Amino acid sequence: MSFRFTITKRLKNMPARLGRITTPHGSFPTPAFVPVATAASVRSLDTDDLRELGSGVILANTYHLHLRPGEKLVKRLGGIHGFMHWDGPVFTDSGGFQAFSLGYGMEHNINKLGTIFPTREDATPHKKWATIDDSGATFKSHIDGSVITLTPKKSMQIQSDLGADIILAFDECTSPLSDYGYTKKALLRTHRWAEECIAAKGNPKQAMYGIVQGGAYHDLREASASFISSLPFEGIAIGGSLGRSKKDMHDILSWVIPLLPEQKPRHLLGIGGIDDLFECVERGIDTFDCVTPTRWARRGVVFISPKEGGTPQNKFRINIARVRYRTEKKPIDRYYTHPRLLQYSLAYLSHLFIARELSFFRLASLHNLAFILRLMEDIRISIEKGEFKRLKRQWLG
Amino acid sequence: MSFRFTITKRLKNMPARLGRITTPHGSFPTPAFVPVATAASVRSLDTDDLRELGSGVILANTYHLHLRPGEKLVKRLGGIHGFMHWDGPVFTDSGGFQAFSLGYGMEHNINKLGTIFPTREDATPHKKWATIDDSGATFKSHIDGSVITLTPKKSMQIQSDLGADIILAFDECTSPLSDYGYTKKALLRTHRWAEECIAAKGNPKQAMYGIVQGGAYHDLREASASFISSLPFEGIAIGGSLGRSKKDMHDILSWVIPLLPEQKPRHLLGIGGIDDLFECVERGIDTFDCVTPTRWARRGVVFISPKEGGTPQNKFRINIARVRYRTEKKPIDRYYTHPRLLQYSLAYLSHLFIARELSFFRLASLHNLAFILRLMEDIRISIEKGEFKRLKRQWLG
Repeated sequence: MSFRFTITKRLKNMPARLGRITTPHGSFPTPAFVPVATAASVRSLDTDDLRELGSGVILANTYHLHLRPGEKLVKRLGGIHGFMHWDGPVFTDSGGFQAFSLGYGMEHNINKLGTIFPTREDATPHKKWATIDDSGATFKSHIDGSVITLTPKKSMQIQSDLGADIILAFDECTSPLSDYGYTKKALLRTHRWAEECIAAKGNPKQAMYGIVQGGAYHDLREASASFISSLPFEGIAIGGSLGRSKKDMHDILSWVIPLLPEQKPRHLLGIGGIDDLFECVERGIDTFDCVTPTRWARRGVVFISPKEGGTPQNKFRINIARVRYRTEKKPIDRYYTHPRLLQYSLAYLSHLFIARELSFFRLASLHNLAFILRLMEDIRISIEKGEFKRLKRQWLG
Repeated sequence: MSFRFTITKRLKNMPARLGRITTPHGSFPTPAFVPVATAASVRSLDTDDLRELGSGVILANTYHLHLRPGEKLVKRLGGIHGFMHWDGPVFTDSGGFQAFSLGYGMEHNINKLGTIFPTREDATPHKKWATIDDSGATFKSHIDGSVITLTPKKSMQIQSDLGADIILAFDECTSPLSDYGYTKKALLRTHRWAEECIAAKGNPKQAMYGIVQGGAYHDLREASASFISSLPFEGIAIGGSLGRSKKDMHDILSWVIPLLPEQKPRHLLGIGGIDDLFECVERGIDTFDCVTPTRWARRGVVFISPKEGGTPQNKFRINIARVRYRTEKKPIDRYYTHPRLLQYSLAYLSHLFIARELSFFRLASLHNLAFILRLMEDIRISIEKGEFKRLKRQWLG
């Protein structure tokens, strides 16, 4: 099978759609949430866990796998699929985002949503670990300090060796702190790199998505959407700074999405809040990847559905270490969870977290991912039935 | 069902026997290995993992659960069975061993087999965290430094609240460094405490094992074996210093076991090397508990069987971080492992360990426990078939 995106249902009054992405390693329905397997492992889970979760697709990180264990070894062991023994569809990112997060992001204590981290021990700017110029990005390895260079061509070679089904063009992600001038300069670079990636791509089995950048600047986003759409990519990802608020992100999507070719799948990079899934599916996003379900899990933060008290205000999350949960006999969530979790009380899970038992991190990760995957399934069903608005209202009010 | 031990097969030429221990939570065949669920969790595994491993029984630690989350909470949540949602047989230890390991053991950098730890960062004696007198043990909590007192009566109360099927008498474990005089004094204390435990035991559903102590001193071990055997315990555990070598341990078993009532089950505390399982089953031990399979797993050390190169010299273990395994396509062990592990190459597991992915710790723990449990099953089958000696020769040469 080669790459194919089929839209199975369109709605009249909004850009949301149902579809199916087919790859050489099988297909999955959209809208879909894509769990992140950074170093060829979704943190704390094994590949059987992913199968049991019913995740249709995963995303691995080019930068991390290039550093360790190296793409040549992954290739020798059958590519990312053989290496981790996962036979479903896989995305790899391009490494461009790490050039941002280890560069500008680290220097300014900021993430791509503009959240500044004044609570970090050292709130003064850090030395950055990545610099960008027209040829590409230069990293100091976060593992051993050695120097790593990523260019569009190099990213294509690494991603070809890793052998994912869907790869991403190498791009520059900008910060909400970047001014118009810098964002424009970075955008032009991203566009040149997009062309270089297309020229350098050597593996015909892989589909490639271009990445729309342009920060929170209306004209730059539109220019990028048009330019990236004009290139022969199989899909389009929307990346980079999405402004400083949810409203900014919604505005950006409303500028970009109408300019994208309707028949190509649209991926929103690094976003995955519960409210975001509704808001962005409604605006026409087909796939999401995000590390937060497993990252929150490792911090003892687990999702709860509306029937268990989840609201937009509490972000559908509870902190399991709170005193009130230490004696609670209920499971985390009776409606949205992994079946394995129904047997454990909040009190037991809270105990495991407080005692730092490693089993907690897996159980909470299973819960959080099962929660998101089940919600995405509900969203798909609601679109099919024409009840998306009702489901959204049930969750977001 | 109440506690019962049935011997299903005796051998003529050695004390090894096949049996079955029945408890209010089901039964399991012996000889058996008992995985340790210190804080109501076998480290890095969840209760479903234990079921999938087919472990017939587990052991939890009284000291740890008393400190956190407290036996009263465990009791409210259905005892240890309800708390961790495990409906099979459970042992709890008495806390006596922690009085040793946090007391004398910490002070002298020594474990109960006499291994001194000169390689610890600080090889000078540590301040001890536990002291013992005739009334019991006083601990400084390893969690928050608060003062905890354990006495025979208190240990009985805690173990009653935890609600295990098989509990242990409160004892004093001595060190290989202890002289005859101290070991004798501690032994008399242990014997008084054994009687106090019997008097204090309040939960008739629980079976209790007495503990034979006496260090590596022949007459003390014999005195202890006779005394403990004379009390109305349901089973006998052999604890404490087992000398400074495997030979010492075998000598101690050869002194003690002939003096024990044949119809009572015999547990060897804290022992679980591959060679030990053969040597001690041969000498008449019915059950073992040991943390090493999961502790080694967390250090990247995994068991291999003879067909994969395991020998008594390498202790049937490999260190997965070694360069030679980083490119190895084979699974850890094709014969003795958890079915889940057959899909993963040594190279992938080595990568997960080096990248400190949490999934590694679980996979390696599953492997090491499956390895030991499968070996115990082989040992049981070999006794049934009269082929124990042959199996032992295949493994130990």
